[in-house]
Amino acid sequence: MSSVLRVVSFGLGPIGLAAARLALQKKSIQLVGAIDVAPEKVGKDLAELLELPAPTGVVVEADAEAALRRLQPDAILHCTSSFMPLVKDQLLLAARCGVNVVSSTEELLVPDLQHAEIAKELDAAAIAGGVSLLGTGVNPGFAMDFMAAIASAVTFDVKSARCVRVVDAATRRLPLQRKVGASLSASEFQKELATGRFGHIGMRESVALLARGLGLAVDRIEQTVEPVLAAEDHKTPFLTVKEGQVAGIRNHGYGYSGQELLVHLDLSMYVGAPDPRDEIVLDSTPPVHLKFQGGIAGDQATAAILVNSLHSVVAAEKGLRTVLDVAPPRLCR
Amino acid sequence: MSSVLRVVSFGLGPIGLAAARLALQKKSIQLVGAIDVAPEKVGKDLAELLELPAPTGVVVEADAEAALRRLQPDAILHCTSSFMPLVKDQLLLAARCGVNVVSSTEELLVPDLQHAEIAKELDAAAIAGGVSLLGTGVNPGFAMDFMAAIASAVTFDVKSARCVRVVDAATRRLPLQRKVGASLSASEFQKELATGRFGHIGMRESVALLARGLGLAVDRIEQTVEPVLAAEDHKTPFLTVKEGQVAGIRNHGYGYSGQELLVHLDLSMYVGAPDPRDEIVLDSTPPVHLKFQGGIAGDQATAAILVNSLHSVVAAEKGLRTVLDVAPPRLCR
Repeated sequence: MSSVLRVVSFGLGPIGLAAARLALQKKSIQLVGAIDVAPEKVGKDLAELLELPAPTGVVVEADAEAALRRLQPDAILHCTSSFMPLVKDQLLLAARCGVNVVSSTEELLVPDLQHAEIAKELDAAAIAGGVSLLGTGVNPGFAMDFMAAIASAVTFDVKSARCVRVVDAATRRLPLQRKVGASLSASEFQKELATGRFGHIGMRESVALLARGLGLAVDRIEQTVEPVLAAEDHKTPFLTVKEGQVAGIRNHGYGYSGQELLVHLDLSMYVGAPDPRDEIVLDSTPPVHLKFQGGIAGDQATAAILVNSLHSVVAAEKGLRTVLDVAPPRLCR
Repeated sequence: MSSVLRVVSFGLGPIGLAAARLALQKKSIQLVGAIDVAPEKVGKDLAELLELPAPTGVVVEADAEAALRRLQPDAILHCTSSFMPLVKDQLLLAARCGVNVVSSTEELLVPDLQHAEIAKELDAAAIAGGVSLLGTGVNPGFAMDFMAAIASAVTFDVKSARCVRVVDAATRRLPLQRKVGASLSASEFQKELATGRFGHIGMRESVALLARGLGLAVDRIEQTVEPVLAAEDHKTPFLTVKEGQVAGIRNHGYGYSGQELLVHLDLSMYVGAPDPRDEIVLDSTPPVHLKFQGGIAGDQATAAILVNSLHSVVAAEKGLRTVLDVAPPRLCR
């Protein structure tokens, strides 16, 4: 990990900006470019978007192909969308340009789960381009899936797995509070839910990754999403949730083999959620019970794991990979 | 991971036998041979050593080279010694025969730490032979080093790390109880300690692996080993520790940069140790506090992680690798 990677930030929403900010601080990473199509960002120095005191020299460009061909970076930090059909062309472009990819695209965590054809096309393009493509993050990607799979390394056998993640949304940024529906009415919540673009994205991918990681023969994945209603008023730095309004979500993911429940993921993200934590329980020989006290901090952690995965991805076998196939992420300096 | 690996057990002490027993149960592993020099084991079917009801067809051989050349396995489960100078020739032989290695040799976890010349020779031989060599285990290899390095994936920065492992030796096999000096007098303990072959092996390697995993500039590693004296009588299934006798060890590992303590590992293994657990605390942004409730079961877990690392090692880039470089271990079926 001693070499310095030349990296381009592709997508400058909240997560992309946080990852870019972090990348700028790393000695082993040189941020050489930034791509985003938003007119209000194009042409600006990253320093302006990040509110840094001095210019970075990295100016936001709209033309991804021109930027990647000119800069020839080792990798992109890709943070544009949660959905594979929307990022497919961007990833194919990176592969054609010979650029490795670390992506926050939730569906890319288990790319063949919902988009087997796109996954095949991406894998072929990555191999042809001599690069690796990886989807990762904290959730999905670490807290409720990867860590539980790794914890199984010390077991003889695992019958089933259960992960509990509790996030007090009051301690998170406004977009997360909006994403979980904080301050909506129950009926507004249901309308948002029907769009399929609301709430936590990636629960199915977490169930699938964990099932594969543990070799559990899950043949059916289901999920439920319910609003959690506030029992009393809660004030966050950004908004107020009144008693009876939606405080956030409870999202269960289930992986079955026939009628047997093999994987159960239980995610609570709401304003005022008590006892924030990440907990992994393997029904295994010997048993495993792992707990992150206080939980894994969401937004910071997501930016961190993207940046901390860059060296692994550049060193990985070429193709469309998953977090189970590449060297594990760890702090990059 | 769908292919079946042909594996030979090399070394049939307690850990080697436990790993062989487990390997026999795996669908994705075919145990095709067993090597040990002990005259009382050579010529016996593994079933006899493992007290299995039916023969396995795997008969213990003394001539490692003949066995590896005849069987041409994908990998060996190597469990012969804790010390690199004692296993060097065995590993060179495996490399020459084109056989990948998962080894329980504690010093092999960070092979260049104490034996840089041997490490170079092993790396060259592995590359020449087209194989990967890996040292792993639970401690060192997972509980106090690897897991703490992986936990840093969700951080921006880590200033220092502390791991606490508490094992109630009363719940472990007799060799572990003997290894930590249970039922010795304090003066017998000190005599044993002076041999350098007593107590926990691999503390320096754990400190070094964690420092590397976190990119901490540790320039000096120290350790202390003290007996823990029993405050009252303890009876285990194997022996009795009387009040005032040694119940086990307390082993601290320290990694410094100059005068600054960056890594602190605190290992207690003694009969009657309260609150068995594995705990990882990173002084990081954001902070990380991870706990295995009840601790990671020692002997079973060590056999498990060796077997569970076989597929990763076979798929890894060729050469002498560390657990930080290869795909992470997880349950093999």
